[in-house]
Amino acid sequence: MDRPFVDLGFARVDTDREARQGAPEAIYAEGKTPEEIAAIATALLDGGASSVLVTRADEAARAALRSVAADAQEDERARLAWVARETPTPRGVVTIVSGGTSDGPVVREVQVRAELLGTTVVVHRDAGVAGLHRLEPALEDLKRADCVVVVAGWDAALASVVGGLVAAPVIAVPTSTGYGATFGGVSALLAMITSCAAGVAVVNIDDGFGAGTIAARIARQ
Amino acid sequence: MDRPFVDLGFARVDTDREARQGAPEAIYAEGKTPEEIAAIATALLDGGASSVLVTRADEAARAALRSVAADAQEDERARLAWVARETPTPRGVVTIVSGGTSDGPVVREVQVRAELLGTTVVVHRDAGVAGLHRLEPALEDLKRADCVVVVAGWDAALASVVGGLVAAPVIAVPTSTGYGATFGGVSALLAMITSCAAGVAVVNIDDGFGAGTIAARIARQ
Amino acid sequence: MDRPFVDLGFARVDTDREARQGAPEAIYAEGKTPEEIAAIATALLDGGASSVLVTRADEAARAALRSVAADAQEDERARLAWVARETPTPRGVVTIVSGGTSDGPVVREVQVRAELLGTTVVVHRDAGVAGLHRLEPALEDLKRADCVVVVAGWDAALASVVGGLVAAPVIAVPTSTGYGATFGGVSALLAMITSCAAGVAVVNIDDGFGAGTIAARIARQ
Amino acid sequence: MDRPFVDLGFARVDTDREARQGAPEAIYAEGKTPEEIAAIATALLDGGASSVLVTRADEAARAALRSVAADAQEDERARLAWVARETPTPRGVVTIVSGGTSDGPVVREVQVRAELLGTTVVVHRDAGVAGLHRLEPALEDLKRADCVVVVAGWDAALASVVGGLVAAPVIAVPTSTGYGATFGGVSALLAMITSCAAGVAVVNIDDGFGAGTIAARIARQ
Amino acid sequence: MDRPFVDLGFARVDTDREARQGAPEAIYAEGKTPEEIAAIATALLDGGASSVLVTRADEAARAALRSVAADAQEDERARLAWVARETPTPRGVVTIVSGGTSDGPVVREVQVRAELLGTTVVVHRDAGVAGLHRLEPALEDLKRADCVVVVAGWDAALASVVGGLVAAPVIAVPTSTGYGATFGGVSALLAMITSCAAGVAVVNIDDGFGAGTIAARIARQ
Amino acid sequence: MDRPFVDLGFARVDTDREARQGAPEAIYAEGKTPEEIAAIATALLDGGASSVLVTRADEAARAALRSVAADAQEDERARLAWVARETPTPRGVVTIVSGGTSDGPVVREVQVRAELLGTTVVVHRDAGVAGLHRLEPALEDLKRADCVVVVAGWDAALASVVGGLVAAPVIAVPTSTGYGATFGGVSALLAMITSCAAGVAVVNIDDGFGAGTIAARIARQ
Amino acid sequence: MDRPFVDLGFARVDTDREARQGAPEAIYAEGKTPEEIAAIATALLDGGASSVLVTRADEAARAALRSVAADAQEDERARLAWVARETPTPRGVVTIVSGGTSDGPVVREVQVRAELLGTTVVVHRDAGVAGLHRLEPALEDLKRADCVVVVAGWDAALASVVGGLVAAPVIAVPTSTGYGATFGGVSALLAMITSCAAGVAVVNIDDGFGAGTIAARIARQ
Amino acid sequence: MDRPFVDLGFARVDTDREARQGAPEAIYAEGKTPEEIAAIATALLDGGASSVLVTRADEAARAALRSVAADAQEDERARLAWVARETPTPRGVVTIVSGGTSDGPVVREVQVRAELLGTTVVVHRDAGVAGLHRLEPALEDLKRADCVVVVAGWDAALASVVGGLVAAPVIAVPTSTGYGATFGGVSALLAMITSCAAGVAVVNIDDGFGAGTIAARIARQ
Ligand SMILES: Nc1ncnc2c1ncn2[C@@H]1O[C@H](COP(=O)(O)O)[C@@H](O)[C@H]1O
Ligand SMILES: Nc1ncnc2c1ncn2[C@@H]1O[C@H](COP(=O)(O)O)[C@@H](O)[C@H]1O
Ligand SMILES: Nc1ncnc2c1ncn2[C@@H]1O[C@H](COP(=O)(O)O)[C@@H](O)[C@H]1O
Ligand SMILES: Nc1ncnc2c1ncn2[C@@H]1O[C@H](COP(=O)(O)O)[C@@H](O)[C@H]1O
Ligand SMILES: [Mg+2]
Ligand SMILES: [Mg+2]
Ligand SMILES: [Mg+2]
Ligand SMILES: [Mg+2]
Ligand SMILES: [Mg+2]
Ligand SMILES: [Mg+2]
Ligand SMILES: [Mg+2]
Ligand SMILES: [Mg+2]
Repeated sequence: MDRPFVDLGFARVDTDREARQGAPEAIYAEGKTPEEIAAIATALLDGGASSVLVTRADEAARAALRSVAADAQEDERARLAWVARETPTPRGVVTIVSGGTSDGPVVREVQVRAELLGTTVVVHRDAGVAGLHRLEPALEDLKRADCVVVVAGWDAALASVVGGLVAAPVIAVPTSTGYGATFGGVSALLAMITSCAAGVAVVNIDDGFGAGTIAARIARQ
Repeated sequence: MDRPFVDLGFARVDTDREARQGAPEAIYAEGKTPEEIAAIATALLDGGASSVLVTRADEAARAALRSVAADAQEDERARLAWVARETPTPRGVVTIVSGGTSDGPVVREVQVRAELLGTTVVVHRDAGVAGLHRLEPALEDLKRADCVVVVAGWDAALASVVGGLVAAPVIAVPTSTGYGATFGGVSALLAMITSCAAGVAVVNIDDGFGAGTIAARIARQ
Repeated sequence: MDRPFVDLGFARVDTDREARQGAPEAIYAEGKTPEEIAAIATALLDGGASSVLVTRADEAARAALRSVAADAQEDERARLAWVARETPTPRGVVTIVSGGTSDGPVVREVQVRAELLGTTVVVHRDAGVAGLHRLEPALEDLKRADCVVVVAGWDAALASVVGGLVAAPVIAVPTSTGYGATFGGVSALLAMITSCAAGVAVVNIDDGFGAGTIAARIARQ
Repeated sequence: MDRPFVDLGFARVDTDREARQGAPEAIYAEGKTPEEIAAIATALLDGGASSVLVTRADEAARAALRSVAADAQEDERARLAWVARETPTPRGVVTIVSGGTSDGPVVREVQVRAELLGTTVVVHRDAGVAGLHRLEPALEDLKRADCVVVVAGWDAALASVVGGLVAAPVIAVPTSTGYGATFGGVSALLAMITSCAAGVAVVNIDDGFGAGTIAARIARQ
Repeated sequence: MDRPFVDLGFARVDTDREARQGAPEAIYAEGKTPEEIAAIATALLDGGASSVLVTRADEAARAALRSVAADAQEDERARLAWVARETPTPRGVVTIVSGGTSDGPVVREVQVRAELLGTTVVVHRDAGVAGLHRLEPALEDLKRADCVVVVAGWDAALASVVGGLVAAPVIAVPTSTGYGATFGGVSALLAMITSCAAGVAVVNIDDGFGAGTIAARIARQ
Repeated sequence: MDRPFVDLGFARVDTDREARQGAPEAIYAEGKTPEEIAAIATALLDGGASSVLVTRADEAARAALRSVAADAQEDERARLAWVARETPTPRGVVTIVSGGTSDGPVVREVQVRAELLGTTVVVHRDAGVAGLHRLEPALEDLKRADCVVVVAGWDAALASVVGGLVAAPVIAVPTSTGYGATFGGVSALLAMITSCAAGVAVVNIDDGFGAGTIAARIARQ
Repeated sequence: MDRPFVDLGFARVDTDREARQGAPEAIYAEGKTPEEIAAIATALLDGGASSVLVTRADEAARAALRSVAADAQEDERARLAWVARETPTPRGVVTIVSGGTSDGPVVREVQVRAELLGTTVVVHRDAGVAGLHRLEPALEDLKRADCVVVVAGWDAALASVVGGLVAAPVIAVPTSTGYGATFGGVSALLAMITSCAAGVAVVNIDDGFGAGTIAARIARQ
Repeated sequence: MDRPFVDLGFARVDTDREARQGAPEAIYAEGKTPEEIAAIATALLDGGASSVLVTRADEAARAALRSVAADAQEDERARLAWVARETPTPRGVVTIVSGGTSDGPVVREVQVRAELLGTTVVVHRDAGVAGLHRLEPALEDLKRADCVVVVAGWDAALASVVGGLVAAPVIAVPTSTGYGATFGGVSALLAMITSCAAGVAVVNIDDGFGAGTIAARIARQ
């Protein structure tokens, strides 16, 4: 168990993660001060991380990253900030399809993470089951994908439709899009995890970060 | 409030229901003795019901109906027994599609009830989303339907796919088919009620009886 | 699957929906910028939609519609904005009854959608079970309805009372009215979906839009 | 805290309860052997209980009571056995109405307990909302009641209808009657506890014993 | 069914309720404009209500009542405003005990409603189970009560302790006091409804209004 | 990480656990064949375990233990079988109190495990809140305890009452005793974990084994 | 949408699935008669399936497969029967680790499916977190895996431990092993889907079939 | 039951608690005015409390304590204020380990309470399972602890890992850290209470106060 990490007192930054698992630790901004975010980001960059990604980042959190890395990029709507240093040469294709316009921020989180980990990402938004013919332009990209990610809220039926069409592994991301009995994404999660299509596996509600991580691992094999 | 009923002590049989609402009272067999079932059936038939339907009927319950009506019919697997007397001349078409083979008994309950209330019923079984091309042979019947009923368990994605294709009102019946996080039909119910396709309305889990009732009302208009 | 849609990048606007299903796509405002709403509305209107409805629309969202359609109308309390162009000549009657005063915005959403799709809508508000005699003035309109919509929160008992009286199909809309164990409309939803009255089908909590859509389909048959 | 009880090792029989609270301890048969039931019953009778009631009692449990009390009575379907010794002279009227035939056993449990505690009980079964005119014959007894008990499963809408009509306190008993989204009585419980009619209070699912206890207390005042 | 009410369009004010059930309709302020509240209050007062109570009333709602009734009273913390006109001469005693200080507003709602309906109310606050000796000063008032109301959040154990001590009927009010697994009062509700003490009945979470209504009915008998 | 275990293929028996944690691995019988149970027990005994305990053991599972250890003891009702070899000399006192008679098997599981781990155990059964004076005889043993274990189903109010009286740490065990809204012990669990008395910690529903383990650890300190 | 299938009336067998998705349709035995199973198996084999797998198969279901395929194999405890015809030459390694002995049947379902789809499968059972050193012998196989599958019930902590160690994609299978608050696998599912280790995706409770399908797809890339 | 308390009307301050249970009453700030907090604090200090702790305290609540005790200390982020008067000489060691940085405020609440009650507290933050080697520096302190407290959100796997390593009693505190299916700490709570490691007991979500109380009781034995 004696692998490296950096002890900041409030955090033990896992600088070993990239060596061990091929993907650097990311920073979950909720519950952290800008100072803490800056310190963790610095520790990761000093530790040689190929990239640093801050998720769920409001303006202050994003500014914290900018303050320690001049080359920081960001996406306000997806609440992301990141630094790309020596990211791996892309290998494999991840195709993302989403059910509706409002799933946009989660789509973006999958995309940024999967690209930072070294994959080519293709995106088809708003191709949900209410108008299934809108999935047509995605068929080619679904076929050539090494991993497919389906992002959908409401009833998440798109995951099963795609899961019944493609030969690649499918990672499903339920989103909190919707109201009433969507229960903040629970109904989508349940539909995806009980999908009648075999070969679909599911991550947490709105967890674009997790989906991007496993999708990149799959696609790069 | 002074409309007719027959008081049997343990039951107040609503012999007025057919006059009032166009569909006779039915008998839910669970928790009733065969004697009670026979007595209620008799009261309904004596009251001029066009049909009597016993649902969730085990062999003893079905025998009870046979004992008071020589013309009783039944379906063991769907746990149904019924008597058709002067059922209305069929008007309108109800098209039923189901997700899988195991939804069979619920499909049958929709069908029997809708036919007893005077509709023409067309059935397409096992056309679920895991192999969507199997829905093709149903497209014609979906288009000509006055009401569409979708019966599905698991993630119930079929309801949204059909709901995004047809112009007729869609009644969705979640079934308890599946295991694990299907939670006895809850996940299907939630997916159907949060369907991204507008114009879908939902009845109780495994409630073929309710679906048949409203479908017939819609189709006969 | 090759039917038309307009690709805006962030949205694939289903301009085919009205031809296919008789009801135009609507715009769910949550999670969309005013610019996106304006662009989708324009695409729909350019595509020949008979009406455009924006739901869950705050002031900015409603202004977005006004900016692209001078003839836009709105209802602030119901958070709606809409444009009525060549809506179908009304056919059939939809009667809406609600349980209490606080259900008003959802009642309005049912009404606007059903009228835009071409029906005559009659409304009786605050006729809940706590004072059942207040339902009396609605009885005539319930009888002549082609479809009845019941809107209720709390225990939603009104749905079953109405469901036991009328011959028309009943669409029930649970609302999030109430506190404590109403759980944001869940208790109402459960009561409606387990209604002891047959022939009641249910849509999502607060989903006036969905109820208006299916009610119009039923009533226009 | 030094009031009497009888210590049997496996049970500390609360022989003081009747003196303290006006109603003797009862015996919940589940999880107890016939020997234990017989011993507790004996302790209660020896302690001067005016009655002993065994609930959820299968044949063995009922036989256990008979073996120690020759004057034991029973109701198989309601799974009850009881001994009535010097029960109080009846005072006050409890009117019970139930939604359907299948609620019978719970109705019976309310009735037996309330009678043993010294009240006059009137029963109207199967007067549910699906055919509301069947409630008519109960109106007189509802008006003259000192306490009303409503027993209902499914959506339990009857509790609110009655709760909006009567001036007496209403105790509502949800039952586990139904299937699917009734969730073993949960939906009925939720509907009753969120009743739009004020002045309704609720006991546990299928808890005729508890309802009978509080109803008798109210009615005897 | 032809009893009086006042139709305001957005509301059908049940001016008959007091005649029918002995307690006037109250006004639930959430989701109503000040104008609507003023109009309903006026209709009730004009209809001869002995009192008008507005619950869940913010400052604007309370001002609305003051604007139509110079004799309006209020309690800001309990979010109540009320007018007492010809309230019944008090009869019977209602004793309220609460678990903790934070249950104060709900205690107050029970008290105001029960007093307006014509009872004498005695209050013992913060007598929860964590320091059970604090219940001692309440014992006398618990014994002489015609109805006991227990108000408690968290685990609501006080309901069972009191339920095991007193001879009067016990109405339990779960409150949303607490955090984490209290789930906004759900755990308290569940504990109260499964109380090991017989003779306890439960109202909705934080529903002081409902508890006050039934408590007054019981106590005045 | 290189500590000993015995690999049986279907199981890796953790023979190191007692050395590491002071308490030997136990055998959970559900889902295991008698042969598997016998083999695991043998491995543990050969590995020098001071005791072996089989929980949730039906007759076949208990026989399996007897077949490999002539000195096996058992308790049929608690579904336990065990072998006591060189158990530690008792140190510290664990006092168990239970709410009702039906909690007996869980009480027994706590007791057997805590005794096997080397403590003196005192038991007071059926001292629940519905008749609180029955707790009196336990007060002395509660005061002298090094750890108190409360076992209760239904509303589990006893945990809070005891938690508000004693100075020792309290371990609470919710049981599945009860019906309806007890939800198999969930309501008890929620009440215990939200106890208004500080210093109460909770184990799984019916988990006498876990409670006995931590109680012994605490009491032996 | 015009791809082949075989219409048996009660089932539309998706003989195209293997061509389309690289994995043949399997047969879920629950709710199907032996005759139906035999007919579907025959249709699949006639359609050229490389293998046929029947899951959740009791003795009658397994016999049905044997009756139509002399080369059928089976595993009684895992409730599986299968026929392997021209399965693909294995490519890639799937390493399965499980938390406990009782997860055995689910482990087996993952293994059989993944092998039938053409992978090499390595299994390490009973390496759960309660004795983490038992994971040591699996480390080598975890490192060389192309896909890792973690099968665990209870709290499913093993998924996160493994998810924090390996570089391969991790598929997590919650099992229904456990009692009380495990809720039939729900707690395991929730723990896995909220895993603090990124790159873990989850399938349905006890769904070895789904895990085997996606694992093979990943490993064969 | 006649032990001392101070009656402030809105509160009955349990000044006896420290004598009775060794730990003074604390003040839960939510739902209390600053005036109430000041009055309760004064009553406790006047009653001789060794310390006063205010939890969930915003700036106003903390100022209230300062206004009555010049020696008040506070921690803004943990929302705590406290006064330490004659706290017991420390006895025993409590070791706290937490899963992530964001669990910081809860860790602090455990620490302050346990120190005020007279223990030595050692803290290791951010040692979660996603990078298990970060637990290494804590091993020594885990071994020498008299009680271990694990604080973790998300899947809370750390509780089981620690629970499988140490010989001391383990108190687990689920936190509300996370999003989506963490459900505000419910998933962590469920994982902890179903831990595969025996000897783990759980307190409420985010309940550092409760954990600190029982941990100090255990450690001081
Ligand atoms: N209030 C509403 N409830 C449910 N669905 C709606 C509502 N308003 C609009 N919609 C539908 O939501 C879809 C838009 O989803 P999106 O692609 O995320 O914009 C459209 O197809 C509408 O038919
Ligand atoms: N705090 C309250 N809790 C529950 N019901 C209330 C409350 N206050 C008023 N009510 C009832 O709510 C009903 C008003 O519903 P609405 O028609 O939506 O205004 C009235 O009949 C009142 O009796
Ligand atoms: N059907 C029932 N529902 C709820 N409580 C009951 C029932 N029958 C008996 N009881 C109560 O259960 C208690 C017995 O609990 P126990 O000590 O486990 O036997 C007695 O105090 C009775 O008052
Ligand atoms: N959006 C996200 N969802 C889930 N996990 C995340 C997310 N962003 C970062 N993480 C992970 O959260 C962990 C940080 O937890 P903490 O110690 O509380 O900062 C890191 O190991 C990240 O890998
Ligand atoms: Mg869209
Ligand atoms: Mg099929
Ligand atoms: Mg009203
Ligand atoms: Mg009936
Ligand atoms: Mg207090
Ligand atoms: Mg007892
Ligand atoms: Mg094991
Ligand atoms: Mg961290």
